[in-house]
Amino acid sequence: MKALLLVAHGSRRKQSNDEVVLLAERLRKNCSEQYNIIHAGFLELAETLIPDGIKKCADDGATSIIVLPYFLNSGRHVVEDIPNIVKDTSPHYPGIDIKIAQHLGASDLMMDLLISSANSTS
Amino acid sequence: MKALLLVAHGSRRKQSNDEVVLLAERLRKNCSEQYNIIHAGFLELAETLIPDGIKKCADDGATSIIVLPYFLNSGRHVVEDIPNIVKDTSPHYPGIDIKIAQHLGASDLMMDLLISSANSTS
Repeated sequence: MKALLLVAHGSRRKQSNDEVVLLAERLRKNCSEQYNIIHAGFLELAETLIPDGIKKCADDGATSIIVLPYFLNSGRHVVEDIPNIVKDTSPHYPGIDIKIAQHLGASDLMMDLLISSANSTS
Repeated sequence: MKALLLVAHGSRRKQSNDEVVLLAERLRKNCSEQYNIIHAGFLELAETLIPDGIKKCADDGATSIIVLPYFLNSGRHVVEDIPNIVKDTSPHYPGIDIKIAQHLGASDLMMDLLISSANSTS
């Protein structure tokens, strides 16, 4: 059972957090063949926090979890905070393989996304 | 002469800003056929600010400028701040058609990008 945990920063603005939850729902509809379990999590300021997101995946029966940082820049949150939280949480789930994906901004597809967004205007 | 102004939030962390400038350089190398002029700009905290980015495009001979918000969420920055700055700056360039593209997070390709990033780990 493969799980995907989409992790955003979290905002004081509810609408921003709702967008991330909605994105996880869209992923769930579109990628259920690749990932049996998909949840959204937040680094701070919003529920569900990352450790609880990992617990949700585990409770759903995950045998592996990919933590996907929904961040554009490789800042402290991506380089330190998320890895540290995952490192602290992993020992509670010895039977689950938990890995962190590259953050969104590092994707090879970013060029295509930027050009597609730019062209959507003209 | 079509110009693309990639607009990020701007960070106190120099490396984050450098990543955006580097991304604009990569766009310049890959998309010079579609956009003759490509610059990076920032909403705050970093140079070049948006009005100066628009000026750079104008100085380079732009006849149209697409302002592309490098943001994941449709927060206040995307909905209010960037449009307001563009609205205030546009009258200084009456001969240039300045438009704002949808922010990155709204792209139809976001699903593909997320899945591609998740799969890069496994």
